[in-house]
Amino acid sequence: MLPPMTTTAIDRTRLREVHARERARFEERTRRSAALTARARPLMPDGVPMAWMAGLYDHGPVHVAHGEGCRFTDVDGNTYIDFNQADLAASCGFAPPAVVAAIAERAARGMQFLLPVEEGIEAARLLAVRYDLPGWQFTLSASGANAEAIRLARHRTGRPIVVVFGGHYHGHLDDTLVTGDEQHGAPGLLGLNPRAAADTRLVPFNDLDALERVLAGEDVAAVVTEPALTNVGVVLPDDGFLAGVRAATRAHGTLLVLDETHTQTVAYGGLTRAWGLEPDVVTLGKSLGGGMPVGAYGMTAELRDHLEEYRDAFGRVTGIATGGTTYANPLSLAAVVATLTRVQTPDGFDRVRALGARLADGIEAQAGERGLPWRAHRLGCRSGICLEPELPRNAEDAARSIDAALVDARRLHLANRGIWDAIASAGPAASFAHTEADVDAYPEALGGFLDDVVG
Amino acid sequence: MLPPMTTTAIDRTRLREVHARERARFEERTRRSAALTARARPLMPDGVPMAWMAGLYDHGPVHVAHGEGCRFTDVDGNTYIDFNQADLAASCGFAPPAVVAAIAERAARGMQFLLPVEEGIEAARLLAVRYDLPGWQFTLSASGANAEAIRLARHRTGRPIVVVFGGHYHGHLDDTLVTGDEQHGAPGLLGLNPRAAADTRLVPFNDLDALERVLAGEDVAAVVTEPALTNVGVVLPDDGFLAGVRAATRAHGTLLVLDETHTQTVAYGGLTRAWGLEPDVVTLGKSLGGGMPVGAYGMTAELRDHLEEYRDAFGRVTGIATGGTTYANPLSLAAVVATLTRVQTPDGFDRVRALGARLADGIEAQAGERGLPWRAHRLGCRSGICLEPELPRNAEDAARSIDAALVDARRLHLANRGIWDAIASAGPAASFAHTEADVDAYPEALGGFLDDVVG
Repeated sequence: MLPPMTTTAIDRTRLREVHARERARFEERTRRSAALTARARPLMPDGVPMAWMAGLYDHGPVHVAHGEGCRFTDVDGNTYIDFNQADLAASCGFAPPAVVAAIAERAARGMQFLLPVEEGIEAARLLAVRYDLPGWQFTLSASGANAEAIRLARHRTGRPIVVVFGGHYHGHLDDTLVTGDEQHGAPGLLGLNPRAAADTRLVPFNDLDALERVLAGEDVAAVVTEPALTNVGVVLPDDGFLAGVRAATRAHGTLLVLDETHTQTVAYGGLTRAWGLEPDVVTLGKSLGGGMPVGAYGMTAELRDHLEEYRDAFGRVTGIATGGTTYANPLSLAAVVATLTRVQTPDGFDRVRALGARLADGIEAQAGERGLPWRAHRLGCRSGICLEPELPRNAEDAARSIDAALVDARRLHLANRGIWDAIASAGPAASFAHTEADVDAYPEALGGFLDDVVG
Repeated sequence: MLPPMTTTAIDRTRLREVHARERARFEERTRRSAALTARARPLMPDGVPMAWMAGLYDHGPVHVAHGEGCRFTDVDGNTYIDFNQADLAASCGFAPPAVVAAIAERAARGMQFLLPVEEGIEAARLLAVRYDLPGWQFTLSASGANAEAIRLARHRTGRPIVVVFGGHYHGHLDDTLVTGDEQHGAPGLLGLNPRAAADTRLVPFNDLDALERVLAGEDVAAVVTEPALTNVGVVLPDDGFLAGVRAATRAHGTLLVLDETHTQTVAYGGLTRAWGLEPDVVTLGKSLGGGMPVGAYGMTAELRDHLEEYRDAFGRVTGIATGGTTYANPLSLAAVVATLTRVQTPDGFDRVRALGARLADGIEAQAGERGLPWRAHRLGCRSGICLEPELPRNAEDAARSIDAALVDARRLHLANRGIWDAIASAGPAASFAHTEADVDAYPEALGGFLDDVVG
């Protein structure tokens, strides 16, 4: 694929030179990390405890010593202002004091019972108010929440098919780790059960006609989507698109599952509340526990009652496949309550939304000053760089702005100047722990990078 | 099904009367729990944050206020010595001080980075020594570990089929939540993708001939099993069975995945080390983080290198589907290190094994004194009641000892006397936090129950 027209101002030869220079400098600065990776490699593939920690970057893994607020320090003593925040799992900051205190306090009173604790009721109540959905269940991550939402939808509707949009990501489920089109789905990664993907269909985002064609089969259990796509940069819905999705799913007896794993961080009550959406199920994860791993899903009263009616009871009644021994553990529930009441407050969202806008303004200003007609994404705390003058309407559009050579060189250039850039599928975001000065550091560093690569 | 011969001494009329009496007494003692459940029910199906908390018991959920050591106290102020320990997720005790301290300390230094921390290397090193497998990856639970082990096996072998044994449980995966036989698999719960189960086969435990027939198809990626079944009471392998499984899988190019989620708690290095087994992959979860949710899998050098070779890299290379944003988070890794070095030590295992034997002796003594030729299971910390004079060899045998009327009445009788019994699929276990006096309380309470129901 040709680079987008608007990156022709980028001198590709200089970009390669800058990449090589910054890479050498980065390797110089991260020698202890490299030594740890080498030591760890016999014990863990790529020397990391989870493969993405190596696969998400073009450079070797940085090993972190500690993080507070929006900054982390690696084992070589380099400190970074972080605009990735563990792909928004750390959007409350790395160690939000209220959450740290809640976890420590709850841990001392017991970590696992396989029985309910009062924090669960409070967590469900807070979420019910925010998302205007009455019934809640907790998991360990959004992957678990999406898996259960799909099972609930399949059983409720008696239908097999799941529809996702191009550019989707809903966790590491066989059903949604898929590629394909309106007619068929196929596994999107290696090792997956190929049969599972066969019940999934893909349609382009912002294409109601395509969605209508698939729903017309009357065999679709659920449409699963983010309200705005956030795993290919950002793709906003056209005016009326989400209303159209809701109307079409209702007309065809299909449930609508909104995955707000990322977008829960951009507005109080997520985009469900901000945009007045009416999903049957909302799924959450990542920042929900302020850093403590936890997922959740909210559902309508009808689905809540359905799940209760078809509750599985060991050895007595075969019910819907939900749950896990350590799901809804007290630590995670206490962390949710602390996060929602002490960090992700209405005031907190107002502040972070302003920071996100400031970040986007800064990015556009830096590009504009250098004659680059780029756009910044604007979705609450989340920004990101669109390399074209028109914002993307679907995954195909969005992919043109994920220019690997540019992303890789920029990441190293910024890292060497104390800025930790977002992973390639995302875009820089302000966290609840950033100040205006912290946010301003990103556009400033971006400007420095552009000075080095614009011909 | 008729009750087992050896329960004919149980007067079924008296059992029903005792159940009704104890249930009324339990409801009297747990009024605040019932009120909380009623308050929570509009917010969560059955008033619980995860369906099993209601589905595992014949009575209403008990809401827990706090737990320390092997005791927890409910919101009505009742304190229980716990022989269930969240189905072994809390086998280190509810708030093991070393783990609580490690979590609090690590939380304050950052909870999520999507980057490695040094605790991960130490956790992998400790596990590599224990299980004699060099390569490790971390997840949030054993379900995640089993899902990735199956994907790795499918890709490595290029084969689709997974084999499990009757009485299996490997987490909430479509691939293993199955029923069926040698010829076909079908979903074992509602809402699952029916296609996924079609690639799974079931054979009886301790039946090498049946296993051989399935493996002979040369299309089996992996046999996934616990070394001893622990989700239908306990079923021990016959002498030579596991060696036969290993020989047969090797002969047919099939990988062997040992799920030690429960059995990691019964011996140092699990049954893999205790029995000198040679799996390709070991999967862990539950007690691994001493109460902090975490899963892991260990693999051979060959599989470690394979996973590294086929590592997924966003937008560059499509690799094996492993990982998750919050997997291998610093809190969970710090908890693993503290658990392994401070709680699940060789001395700790020696102590808890002796407690488990004491528990089993006590159970058999109480039954024997009343003329009941029952057997107690003996698997490290885990005991349990076999209602027949011969221990079970497979799930069908084992099911005869899960006598719902007996289990339900016993649970309530014991609960009213401060003993929290195991869930029906398990059996009572000693935790790392029990003393001999704590352990003795179970057989004593069991004796009292038997006095009430033996005719």
